Parts: sequence; structure tokens; C-alpha cells
Amino acid sequence: MKLNDWLNSEIPTISQSLEEIHREHFSIDKTIGFEGQESIYSLIKDFRSALFPCLCDKYSNVETRINISIGNKLRTSAINLKELIEKVLINDSSIHEDEAKEKADLIVIDLIKKLPEIRRVIQTDIRAAYNGDPATTSLEEILLSYPSIQSITIHRIAHELYKAGVPIIPRIMSEYAHRLTGIDIHPGASIGEYFFIDHGTGVVIGETCTIGRNVKIYQGVTLGAKSFPLDEHGNPIKGIKRHPNIEDNVVIYSGATILGGDTTIGQNSVIGGNIWLTQSVPANSRVYQTQPSPNIKNGQL
Amino acid sequence: MKLNDWLNSEIPTISQSLEEIHREHFSIDKTIGFEGQESIYSLIKDFRSALFPCLCDKYSNVETRINISIGNKLRTSAINLKELIEKVLINDSSIHEDEAKEKADLIVIDLIKKLPEIRRVIQTDIRAAYNGDPATTSLEEILLSYPSIQSITIHRIAHELYKAGVPIIPRIMSEYAHRLTGIDIHPGASIGEYFFIDHGTGVVIGETCTIGRNVKIYQGVTLGAKSFPLDEHGNPIKGIKRHPNIEDNVVIYSGATILGGDTTIGQNSVIGGNIWLTQSVPANSRVYQTQPSPNIKNGQL
Amino acid sequence: MKLNDWLNSEIPTISQSLEEIHREHFSIDKTIGFEGQESIYSLIKDFRSALFPCLCDKYSNVETRINISIGNKLRTSAINLKELIEKVLINDSSIHEDEAKEKADLIVIDLIKKLPEIRRVIQTDIRAAYNGDPATTSLEEILLSYPSIQSITIHRIAHELYKAGVPIIPRIMSEYAHRLTGIDIHPGASIGEYFFIDHGTGVVIGETCTIGRNVKIYQGVTLGAKSFPLDEHGNPIKGIKRHPNIEDNVVIYSGATILGGDTTIGQNSVIGGNIWLTQSVPANSRVYQTQPSPNIKNGQL
Amino acid sequence: MKLNDWLNSEIPTISQSLEEIHREHFSIDKTIGFEGQESIYSLIKDFRSALFPCLCDKYSNVETRINISIGNKLRTSAINLKELIEKVLINDSSIHEDEAKEKADLIVIDLIKKLPEIRRVIQTDIRAAYNGDPATTSLEEILLSYPSIQSITIHRIAHELYKAGVPIIPRIMSEYAHRLTGIDIHPGASIGEYFFIDHGTGVVIGETCTIGRNVKIYQGVTLGAKSFPLDEHGNPIKGIKRHPNIEDNVVIYSGATILGGDTTIGQNSVIGGNIWLTQSVPANSRVYQTQPSPNIKNGQL
Amino acid sequence: MKLNDWLNSEIPTISQSLEEIHREHFSIDKTIGFEGQESIYSLIKDFRSALFPCLCDKYSNVETRINISIGNKLRTSAINLKELIEKVLINDSSIHEDEAKEKADLIVIDLIKKLPEIRRVIQTDIRAAYNGDPATTSLEEILLSYPSIQSITIHRIAHELYKAGVPIIPRIMSEYAHRLTGIDIHPGASIGEYFFIDHGTGVVIGETCTIGRNVKIYQGVTLGAKSFPLDEHGNPIKGIKRHPNIEDNVVIYSGATILGGDTTIGQNSVIGGNIWLTQSVPANSRVYQTQPSPNIKNGQL
Amino acid sequence: MKLNDWLNSEIPTISQSLEEIHREHFSIDKTIGFEGQESIYSLIKDFRSALFPCLCDKYSNVETRINISIGNKLRTSAINLKELIEKVLINDSSIHEDEAKEKADLIVIDLIKKLPEIRRVIQTDIRAAYNGDPATTSLEEILLSYPSIQSITIHRIAHELYKAGVPIIPRIMSEYAHRLTGIDIHPGASIGEYFFIDHGTGVVIGETCTIGRNVKIYQGVTLGAKSFPLDEHGNPIKGIKRHPNIEDNVVIYSGATILGGDTTIGQNSVIGGNIWLTQSVPANSRVYQTQPSPNIKNGQL
Repeated sequence: MKLNDWLNSEIPTISQSLEEIHREHFSIDKTIGFEGQESIYSLIKDFRSALFPCLCDKYSNVETRINISIGNKLRTSAINLKELIEKVLINDSSIHEDEAKEKADLIVIDLIKKLPEIRRVIQTDIRAAYNGDPATTSLEEILLSYPSIQSITIHRIAHELYKAGVPIIPRIMSEYAHRLTGIDIHPGASIGEYFFIDHGTGVVIGETCTIGRNVKIYQGVTLGAKSFPLDEHGNPIKGIKRHPNIEDNVVIYSGATILGGDTTIGQNSVIGGNIWLTQSVPANSRVYQTQPSPNIKNGQL
Repeated sequence: MKLNDWLNSEIPTISQSLEEIHREHFSIDKTIGFEGQESIYSLIKDFRSALFPCLCDKYSNVETRINISIGNKLRTSAINLKELIEKVLINDSSIHEDEAKEKADLIVIDLIKKLPEIRRVIQTDIRAAYNGDPATTSLEEILLSYPSIQSITIHRIAHELYKAGVPIIPRIMSEYAHRLTGIDIHPGASIGEYFFIDHGTGVVIGETCTIGRNVKIYQGVTLGAKSFPLDEHGNPIKGIKRHPNIEDNVVIYSGATILGGDTTIGQNSVIGGNIWLTQSVPANSRVYQTQPSPNIKNGQL
Repeated sequence: MKLNDWLNSEIPTISQSLEEIHREHFSIDKTIGFEGQESIYSLIKDFRSALFPCLCDKYSNVETRINISIGNKLRTSAINLKELIEKVLINDSSIHEDEAKEKADLIVIDLIKKLPEIRRVIQTDIRAAYNGDPATTSLEEILLSYPSIQSITIHRIAHELYKAGVPIIPRIMSEYAHRLTGIDIHPGASIGEYFFIDHGTGVVIGETCTIGRNVKIYQGVTLGAKSFPLDEHGNPIKGIKRHPNIEDNVVIYSGATILGGDTTIGQNSVIGGNIWLTQSVPANSRVYQTQPSPNIKNGQL
Repeated sequence: MKLNDWLNSEIPTISQSLEEIHREHFSIDKTIGFEGQESIYSLIKDFRSALFPCLCDKYSNVETRINISIGNKLRTSAINLKELIEKVLINDSSIHEDEAKEKADLIVIDLIKKLPEIRRVIQTDIRAAYNGDPATTSLEEILLSYPSIQSITIHRIAHELYKAGVPIIPRIMSEYAHRLTGIDIHPGASIGEYFFIDHGTGVVIGETCTIGRNVKIYQGVTLGAKSFPLDEHGNPIKGIKRHPNIEDNVVIYSGATILGGDTTIGQNSVIGGNIWLTQSVPANSRVYQTQPSPNIKNGQL
Repeated sequence: MKLNDWLNSEIPTISQSLEEIHREHFSIDKTIGFEGQESIYSLIKDFRSALFPCLCDKYSNVETRINISIGNKLRTSAINLKELIEKVLINDSSIHEDEAKEKADLIVIDLIKKLPEIRRVIQTDIRAAYNGDPATTSLEEILLSYPSIQSITIHRIAHELYKAGVPIIPRIMSEYAHRLTGIDIHPGASIGEYFFIDHGTGVVIGETCTIGRNVKIYQGVTLGAKSFPLDEHGNPIKGIKRHPNIEDNVVIYSGATILGGDTTIGQNSVIGGNIWLTQSVPANSRVYQTQPSPNIKNGQL
Repeated sequence: MKLNDWLNSEIPTISQSLEEIHREHFSIDKTIGFEGQESIYSLIKDFRSALFPCLCDKYSNVETRINISIGNKLRTSAINLKELIEKVLINDSSIHEDEAKEKADLIVIDLIKKLPEIRRVIQTDIRAAYNGDPATTSLEEILLSYPSIQSITIHRIAHELYKAGVPIIPRIMSEYAHRLTGIDIHPGASIGEYFFIDHGTGVVIGETCTIGRNVKIYQGVTLGAKSFPLDEHGNPIKGIKRHPNIEDNVVIYSGATILGGDTTIGQNSVIGGNIWLTQSVPANSRVYQTQPSPNIKNGQL
């Protein structure tokens, strides 16, 4: 009974105090909150179902259903997304509410319009996985079991919203992809067609990266920033180009670290495993390390 | 009203076009789809509950329930798995439908039969974790909080299906484990008893690896392929032994990379952290790097 | 019909045998089981909602609801947590049942009491993320999309339970955080205010680490143990200080490995990427490696 | 353990035998089954939401949503209904499968087309309830708490399908209404505008009834059949007009029973409580019973 | 494809038209809607759990939980109810919004305060069922399987809200009880302690009924209105006393109909089955009908 | 804020007081509670699915599934039912716990054994409905839309448990049927094969009724008790034969009331609508009332 009595007498004060601390830093009614976060995860699933429809369910003999089902998912997603965008636009910037609504409409229309093109590009990514991994046996296997496809699908949607100036939502999307795959691509990164990440865990691709066509990356690769300048208050200066450029047809093996906004990997280059690069390399380079030969001590340990 | 009107007028065309792009590359009715993917995740959970039964729920005073509960989960899983296997067999290969059904039956029966043996082996993995980590305090803690056990449990099931020639499904299983743990073990890898991966994030174990008994691996270890040969069309040649062999009683510390199908780590060897190895080492080796002593600059930065 | 007949005749025996193997090693009725695991995941979500309340749902115009909602979540969480703690205390140790119940009450009361202070500290962590990442644009974005905040929130709760001597539960919490973020912090680690982990995948922070105030860590950093001593039965000796100390105002870049219980990184130091450190460095150090310049081979590959 | 053993050994036989008995009388794969039953209940709810849309949920500030929401519900309902109709048409009659599909399409299109008209008529029913019950205070109260509206809404939809020759489904709909309200209206009954049933429990309205405009009925009224003729095998002859006609502006008080296919209640008539009628009455009749005065025995019982 | 094309082209117009018809008669954003209806059903369940708590669930060994559980349900119900009341007050009457909020607070506080007294009275109803039905064997059986208790519990709550002037909500509650039990008690009816309805289907108790202590009613009984006066527009005049008074210790057998606002059944009376009464009877009456002896025709039919 | 403050300060006391009132009359931990009630509703659904299996779901091409599915439902139902029976036996009677468990086992085994026979009998009920209602067109329509079948199916199961002496549970089952159909059959009633109730709302069949083969009943029929004797404390004497016997081949039309334990309706008789009978009638009787001819007043009302 002790715990019960204590809860009855103390919970009101503790609740009050938790609410107050939170309110000091956050406006609790001008946020999309964890509920918005969950909505965005749902949106992603709906977009995925619309992009990769299947007749695998019980109504598989009904052609009509596929088309209706895609349409319904798009409609619902569009409305939900519009509302979330409206909300973050109003909260985040100095935009007028009416303008925010109008802008939200346009952003959503624009995204939905681009979906067929996004789908076309993802097909090149699927093809890249198929051609890039000897372990795979079918396109379907790639669609259903490759983290690369999950990650790049979410990225290509989030990137459109990022370009349209939507705050917060693209990052929630990219963090969702990060959670599912261990691949952390900032929605600001610009990535060309026919892109493949093998295994993927630990990959980090920074906000101002540009990546060309037909690039292949392995697990643990970082495309990051060098140290960044602070402003007079000691805060990092935002909006500077901080991450590298990867040109077409580049392969980057596992564990490589490439840093800096001025660093460009020229086309057709190959970057070896565990390479640490903070400077550009020209096209057609092959960058490798004579790995220091390890000491091997034979005999009874 | 603008968005609504636009959606009403444009969604049919966009849905149509998404469907068409997808159909060009995938047969939308000969797939297990995302729904099949979810079924496989459920299967995994059912197998887990059957392998590690507990009386922790509200009916904890009823002995009968445990046995019935295990049995029901096995029955349901068996039927669901059989149907999924049937479907992927028919879609994937040139097998006749009747033959596919018969084969699916046999594969499932074989897997269920092996479960007690699989469970026995996993118990050695649990024991390996207990003995291998000074931070743990009980077997139960390991079962409920070690990613290694989650990963190896799924692997040992997926590996059986892989050996039986089931397409796609084993990979969906292994990617599910990857998502949950950050440990990416291809279902083709052959792994001995008493296996333990500590922390685990970023571990990659390739399709044609063989790993002996009593092997311990830390986070970030890659057991991967060197570059792989292409066929005349520039596609990777599939089915070649590409990944290393790890013999009994080997320890591999965090971040080590071991590559190549001819690379064998002899029994009782220890591979140090961050080691890069593309050649075999004999039994009883201790492989380490004199880590380059870092430059330490004291003083006011 | 074949599979059905086989299941009908063989499942009872296989169920029986799975149950027996499990019972040999686990007491199936003295465990919190996978159900307890799920309860703990729910607890974490409830605590999160109480710590970061929002009026974002449909009743957003009702002030009362926030306070009631926080209170209800705390009450329910408190009761559920108390029961789980009771159970693991009784199972795990030689404590008497009545004592276990009393202890569980006190532990829960203590945790709930500390929540406002925990919340205050997490606010410093949110601020650290804001100041430490030029890519972010608002505190809300951090709360909703940074794995660092998710990880440290769970850690700060799990750590309290760890200090109170609760078995298993803190580890289930930390492994939940690991699964969501790829960041593996043992609940035993002691971490100061204003803590930030960027990206985070692959970070490992060991049980006996101590980390000061204003420390920043990047992805893939390990704060681990060197090899550990075995007792006369070959089992690791538990309870020894095995992991490093990180003093105030230290930055550790991606992929760095710092090992050993005697290793101390002095305050205001910076540890560079991929550094391997098994010895202490004094305050104000800057530890870096002249990264071996890679071989760059230009020209047609 | 006894129950468990018994179940393990006997369930296969009992299952087998249950399956066999069922198969003797039903074709287990040519049915919509209990699952179809549930789908129909859902359809009803979707139609209801489309007919009576509200902005009461959390997105209440978004005009667009209402329209989209109505549309999505109609689309989904249409597809689901079409499939169910297809199935019952194929199973039930000698129709060719292709023809069944085509017919199902037409029936659904026809129903959806009629919805606005159905909605208009239901509004007259709502108005009839408002004018007919002194206890009500608003149209909204009627919509949300009058069984009459629930019953007549379902009936007006089911009746359209009945007229189109759809088997089984209209009856499942009407039985759903019966379950919810205690009002049992056969989908074959033809009912005019501005219809109101007060309280309603126990009302029965038979298949071949015709009911005019502005009719009001109280609880426990039966509009039923007299005895019905049997064919030479002793089975009831189906398809005969068996139930009464109720003309415009008639009121029928509680517990009245009106039987027979030739029985017509002329317009503007009032039928008193508990009246038993098996013959027609002309227009403008007032039919009542001098209720036999009850024996009242005063005094100490 | 036909249905799909048709839906794509026609649904927008039909949705539009359904929305418009609805808007003509209802304000779609000033309603609690079907969602509010569902919330009220949930409220009822929560109140029921708070009034009849049980330790029957899995945590049955934790005393604390009962108390917390009751409290949480009351808190949540209170808040939800307050919001619904606020909404219907604002919509329904000419009350100012602030006043509505204040009034809603007071109404809810008042209801919660009365719950212990309501519970006490329901216990007398349970006792009345136990004493009134020879078929029952325990109080628990009555609580879990008697429609009378379900109906009167909901009524006693709805009646408080009715008295407090809350529109719509009490009627939604009473209609919920009607749906579950077939017993239709208007929330306006005033009912004394120790009340029992046996079987219950078809019972109707009108808005202005008053029922004394220790009254027992059987299935199919109507306590209704005679015809009611219309105003100059032909609408029923609302707010008149229209239904009978039943004094203490009265029994009314099945199918009896008692009508009229001036009709009083004196205390200790017994009304026989199928009696039709539109006038008062004094105390201690026994009202019965010499049931007309039926014609019994023996012999071969 | 007012409501919140009030709730915080008063809820603990009110909760306490609700708990205390309840505990005075009920033992809160020796009950199956509302949760048990819900379990029983689920059991009924599972039994229904086992008795009327269908291949209507998505796996309709898999013969094996039907058999497995029936078996799984029976197994789960058996275990759940056994636990509920155990609980009510222990609570309700003076039986020893071990004996209760053993008895529960036997009761469940007995019920499951009888299911094929129960199913066979229900098929005669389905046939009776088909032959007895000219409005029906197929057996499937009857199975999916006739309340009679739902009611009698539940009754035939509940009756077995009643005969086995299980307290409370059979009544919860019968009240569930009552809720769904408006037909209230006490589980004690004994009912022969080939039984049909048309429409059904308001039918009451008492505990000690016996009903022969091929009986047909219409809505609103009561087979009830006359007044019942009280013991010296004024409580009804339980366990006496109080309800009528209906012999084979009897038809009872709507609204008839037949009362008393000595009342027997001889075989092949027909009882007309609204008949009130408290005495036996011989075989082959036709009981009817010259319905008093109603007064019909023509002309302008």
C-alpha cells in the first residue's frame, strides 16, 4: 500500500514539475510530437506500398484493387503529410498561416507528382544492388531484404521535402531509415541514380554531400565533415558546405572515412577499406593503403 | 480545396503509372511481398517462443499450457512457412507446382524435426556469452538482452532453410536479425557451436564463411570478400567461395577485417582489434598490430 | 495432407523435447520472459511521454489533460515497474520475498522522485546536440530525430536502476536503446551532463566507464575493456573496473577505440578519428595520428 | 498433464470429424464465411461514415479531409462489396463467372450512384423521428442515439442489393441491424420516405411488406405472414406475397400484429396497441380494442 | 477495370454531393459524431470497471494495482467526459463557451463524487436480482450475466447527467444499454433502489416515469405515453409529464403495458402479464385478466 | 485546472471507497471477472469456427490449414475453458482444489468429445430453418444470417456445461447469445433436434423447460414460470421444476405465453399467436383464440 499512497500524494507535484521543465524549453502545443513522428513512419510505409504494389494478399485475383489501393494510399498520405507540413511550417518559421497552408499544398502536390520519377530511379538502385552483390539471386530478394533499398527509398522522398524547405520532417524520415538499417543519410545529401550500399551498418553520409551516378559504398563508410567553424557565440555556423563530393562510378570500401566540403573523389575511382581521406583525388584513381602487415606470433599462446 | 481537387484529378494517372513501372520489373502477383515479409517476422517470433517457452504470463499455474502453446506455435508456423516456401519455390525456379508443394512439405518437416537440436546448440551459444562477458550476471539476462543470442537464433533457423535451397526467405530472416541487432550474418554462413558476438553492431559475416566451434567476435568485425570476378557481361559470378574460414577457438577483436575465400584463421588464434587480414594465419597465432603510437600534443589547445 | 498428418503425430514429442531442453537451463516460471521484455519497452515509452509531454493530439485545447496524462503514465509505469523489479529480485538473489517487495517499492519511489532532475539533465543533452551539430535547426528536431537523445534518455533511467541493484531490467532497457539507435551504452556507465553522440551507430560504452561533463562522441567509438582476467575455473572475474574514464570537455572522433580501466582521458582533450588508445593522456591533449597518406594511383584502372 | 495428453491424441480425429460433417452440407471453399460476415459489418460502418461525415476528429480544421475521407471509404467499400457479390453470385446461381463479375460491377456502380438519393430519403426519416418523439431535442441526438435511424439506414442499402438479386448479403446486413437494434426488417420489404420506428425492440417486418410514406411504428409490432402453403414435398413455397401493405400516413402502436399478403391498412389509419389484424381496413380507419378492463383486486394481498 | 475507372471518375462528385446533403442538416464540425459515440461506450466500460473492480487479471497478487487502476480509470473518464460535455453544451445551447467549460467541470466533479452512492444503490439492485430469480446461484453470476444489472448501471449514470442538463450524451448511453440488453430506459426516468428487470428484452421505460423502491419488471413491459399533444405547428409539445408512476414494491409481469402521465400504480400492487392499463390503481391492488380461455381443438389436425 | 486539482485531491478517497463497497459483497480475487466474461465470448467464437470451418480466407488453396485450424482452435479453447471452469469450481463450491482441477479436465474432455454430435444436431436445426422459412434461399444464408442458429449453437454448448454442474459460465454464454439475438434461453433448458426460432427477439425459455424434436417458435414467445414458492426467509426456493414441457412437432406462434412446470403441450400441437396458457393441452391440439374483432372506425379521424 506504501507505493500507492506515495504515488497518490506525490504524483501531482512531480507531474507538474515535469510539465514545467518541458514547457521552459518546448512549446507543448506547437509541435508534431511523438504522435507526428509515428505518423511519419506510417507515411513512409504507405509510400512504400504505393511505390512497390503487390497482389500478394487475399484479393490477389482482383486487378482493380491494386490501382485503387495505390490511389487510396497516395490520397491519405498526401492529406496527412500536408497537415504535418503545415504544422511544422507554422511553428518553425515566420511564415503567415495562410501562406503556410498554401505552401504545404504545393509541396505535397510536387512530391506526389515526382513519385513516378522517384520510382524509376529506385529501380536503377535495385539494379545496382543486383549487379553489385554476387550473393543475391533475384530482384525480389533485393526489394524484400536489402537495407540499401529501404534506406535509399526513404532518402529519395525525404530529400525532395528537404529541398522544398520543409523543416524537421525530412530528418525524422532519415532517422527512421537509420533505425531500420543502421545507414545514416542526411536528407540534404544529393545522390545520383544506380546507387548501392552493401551491408550498410555504420554508414554516415552528411548533409552537404553530393554523390554521382553508379556509386557503391560498403558498411562503415563515413562521408563527413572536418571540424566546423564557430560563430562569435561559439555556436557552429550552419549552412556551410562541409561534406565531400563523390563523382560518378566510384566504389568506396568498408570503413573508409572521407571528410571535408572541398574533398572531391574523381569519377571512376576506387577507395580502399579503412582509408582516411581529407583531400581530393582525381578521376580514375585507385586509393589504397599498403595495410601494415600485422605481427603474427605463431606457437602456443 | 486545391489539394483535394488536384488529388481527385491526378491520382488515377499517377497510380496507373506507378503500377506500370512496378510491373515492368516485378510480377506483382507472384511474390510474397511486404505481407510475406511481415509473416516471416512473425514466424521468427513464434519460433523464438517455442524455443524459449516461459510461464511468465497470467496462466502461470497451468503446466499444460506450456506444452500446448509450444505445439500450437509450431503447427501454425509450420503451415505458414510451408505456404511461403511453396510460393517462392514456384516463383523462383523452374520447378513444377506439385513438386514445389511436396518439396515445401519436406523442408518444413525437416526444419521442425531439427528444432530440438538447434535449441541444444543455442544453449551452447548462451553459455558462451555467459562465459565470455564479465558484465553479465545470469543466463536469463543473456536470453533477454543480448543481441548475439537474437542474431544467432535467427541465423541457425535461416541457415537450415538456406541449405534446403529455399530462395529469398532465409535472407529476409537474416535481414530481420540485422535490423534488430546491427549484426549482418548471411544465411549461407556455416557457424559452429558455442558462438558469441559481443556488442555486435557492424559485424558482417559473408555467405561462404565457415566458422568453427567456440569462436568469439566483437563489434565491427567484417568477414568479407575480396573483389570478385565478373562474367563476360560484367556481372559478378555467383556461387564462388568468397569468404574466410575461421577455425575453432578463435577470438577476433573489434573492427578487424578478414577477407577472402582462401583466408583461413587457424584454430586457437587471436586476431587483434582493427587488424586487416587478407591471408591465412596458422593455428595458435596471435595477430596484432603495434598500434602506431598516436601523437599526443599536451597544453592549451 | 502429408504435413498435417506429420504435425499431428510428431508435434507433441517435439514440443515436449523443446520444453525439456529449456527447463534444464531456465526455470520457466521464475522469469519475466519475453513478455516482461515487451513490458519494459512499454515502460520506456511511457516514461518518454511523461518526460516530453505534448499537446499535439486531438485534445490539444485541454490544459488539464497534459497533467493528468503525465500522472497516469507515471502511476501505471510505477506499478508495472515495481512488479517486474519484485520478480527479478526474488528470482535473482537470495533475498526474502517480503524484503524484495519492500525494496521494489523503495526503488520505484526513488526513481520517480528523480525524474524531474533526470529531465533537467537531458535538457542539457539536448542543448549539447543543438550546439554540437551544425546540421540541426531546432530543439524540436533534436527531440524527434536524434538517436543521441533517445539513447541517453533511456540510459539515464536504466542507470538509476543499475545503481539501485536491480538485475536484468537495466540491461533490457539499454539493449532496447541499442536496437533503436545502434548505440550500446551499458547501464553501469556513469555519464555527466551535456553529453552528445553524433550519428552514433557502432558506439560502445562499457559498464565501468566514467564520462565527465560536456563530452562529445562520434559514431563507431569504443570505450571498452582490455583483456580481462579469468578466475581459476577459466571464467571472467566479474566486478572489476575495466573501462576508461573520460574527463570533462572531451571530444572523441569517429572510430576511435579507448580501452582499459586505468585509461583516463584528461579534461579538454580531443581524440582524433580511428585513434587506438590503451593508455591515459593528460588534460588538454590533442591526440591525432598522422594518417598514413594513402597510395593514390591515377590513370585508367 | 491429462488434458494435454488427451488433446494431443484425440484432437486430430475430432477435427477431422468436424470437418467432414461440415463438408457434407457446405462447400467450405465456396462461401464468404464468417470472415465475409465481418466484412459486411465493416462495409456498413464505412457506408455510414460516408453518409454522415463529420469533422469531429483531430483533423477537424481540414476541410479537404472530409471529402477525401468520404471518397476513400466509398472506393474501398465498393471494391470489397464487389468481391463479395462476385463470390455469392458465383456460388449461388448457375451464372457464368465472367458474367458474375460483370454483374457485380454493375450492381456496385448502381448502389454507389444511388447513395445521394438514399441519403436524402434518410434525412426524411430523421425528420420523422424528430417530429414523432417529444423526448428528442435535436437532429444530432437522433442520428447518434436512435435505433430507428440505424435500422432504416442499413435497410435502405440492403434493399437495393436485394432488388438487384444479390443473394445472402442483404440478409447478413439486415441481421446486423437486427442485432444492433432488435428491429428485424427483411431486406425485401419496400418502405417509403419519412419512416419512424420508436423504441423498436421486437419489431418484425416481413419480406413482401410494402410500407408507404410517413408511417410510424412502435416496439413489438409484427408485419408478418399467415400460415404459408407447402409444396408437394412439404416445403414452404417460396416467392409468394405473404406480408401486408401499409399505406401512407399510418401509425401502428406497440405490440400490434398484422398478418397476411392480402391485408392492406388504408392510408391515414391508426392501429392501436396489441391489435391482431388479419384483414384489410379501409383508409382513414381507427382500429382499436376496448381493452378488456382488468380485474383490480384492492386490499391486503 | 470498369469499376475502377468508374470510381475514379465519379467518386469525387458523389462524395461532394453526400457532403453537401449532410451539411444542409448538420454542422459537421460541431458534433461529437460517431467518434464521440464510441468514446461514450468506452466511458461506460471504464466506469463499470471502476465500480466493479477485480483482481482477476495477471497481476492478481498486487493489491496496489486495484486502487491505482480504479483511480486511473476515473481520471481518464473524467477528462474525456468533461470534453464531450463541453462540446455538446457549446453546440446545443446558447451558453457561452467559458461558462460551458466551467459547467462541464462541475457536472463531472458532481458525477464522480456520487459514484460511491451509485455503487451502493446498484448493490441493492444486485440483491434484488438474487432474491427475485430462483434460477440464480450467486451474486457473481448476476454481475456477469444479468442484463438487468448492465442496464441499471448505465441508467444510474446516465440519469445523473440527464438531471444535470447534459444534452445527447445520456441518450447515447441509454441507447448503448438498449443495444446490449434490449431494455430501453430513457435517462430521464427516475428509478428507486432495489430494482430488477428479469429477462428484459422489449422493456420500454419512458422519460417521465417515476419508479419507487423494490420494483420488479419482466420482459416486454412498456411504461409509455398515451398520445401526446401537438403544438400549433403540429410538432409534439416537449417537456410534459407523459409516463406513469410506479410506487414501491410493485411487480409487473411480462408484456404488460401501462400508459399515461397521470397513471399511478399504488404501492405493493401486482400487475399481471399482458395487462393494458391507462388508469391508476390504488395501493395493494392485484390487477389481472381472466385470460380468455383459448379454444383447444383436439384430434388430428 | 479546477477539475485536475479536484481529481488529484479526491480520486484516491473515491477509489478507496469504491473498492471497499465492492469488497463488502464480492471477493475481488476469486472471480473470473469481466475479463473472464470476454474470454468466454472468445471461446464461443472459437467453437463456432471449429464447428463451421471455412476456406474463405486467403489461404483457401491449402487443405491442410482447415484441419490444423480446427485443431488449434479446439486446443486453445479447451485449455482456456478448463482454467475458467477450475476457477469457478474452486470459488463456487466446497470442492477441494485438486478435485476441482481434475473435474475441470474431465468436463472439458467430455465437451470436446461431444462436439461432433453437437454439430450433427445443429445441422438438423439448420435444416429446420431452411424448411421452416419461405424467405430463405440457401443453407449458407441460414448459417450466416439467422439468429436462431447463433442462439441454438451457443445453447447446445452451454447446456452441456450446465449438465456437468459448471456454475456461472453457462449463464454467461447464454446471456451472450441473448445479447446477440434477443433470444434468452436458460442453459438448463433441454431442447431436442430440428429446432427453429423465427425472428426470435423477445423469446424467453426458462431453466427447467423441456422441448422435444421438431419444435418451431416465433418471436416474443415466453416459456416461463408461474409464481414461485418462497422459503421461510422469503427467498425463492431454487431447484424446482417451474417451466413447461413442449413435446415433439409443436409450433408456437409469436407472442404466446406458456407458463408453469406442470404445463405440457402435447405432440403435434399448434399454439396460436398471443395465446396465454397455464395448463396442459393434449397431443394434436390446435390452440387458438378467436381474436376479439377490433373496432374499426372509418371516416375522417
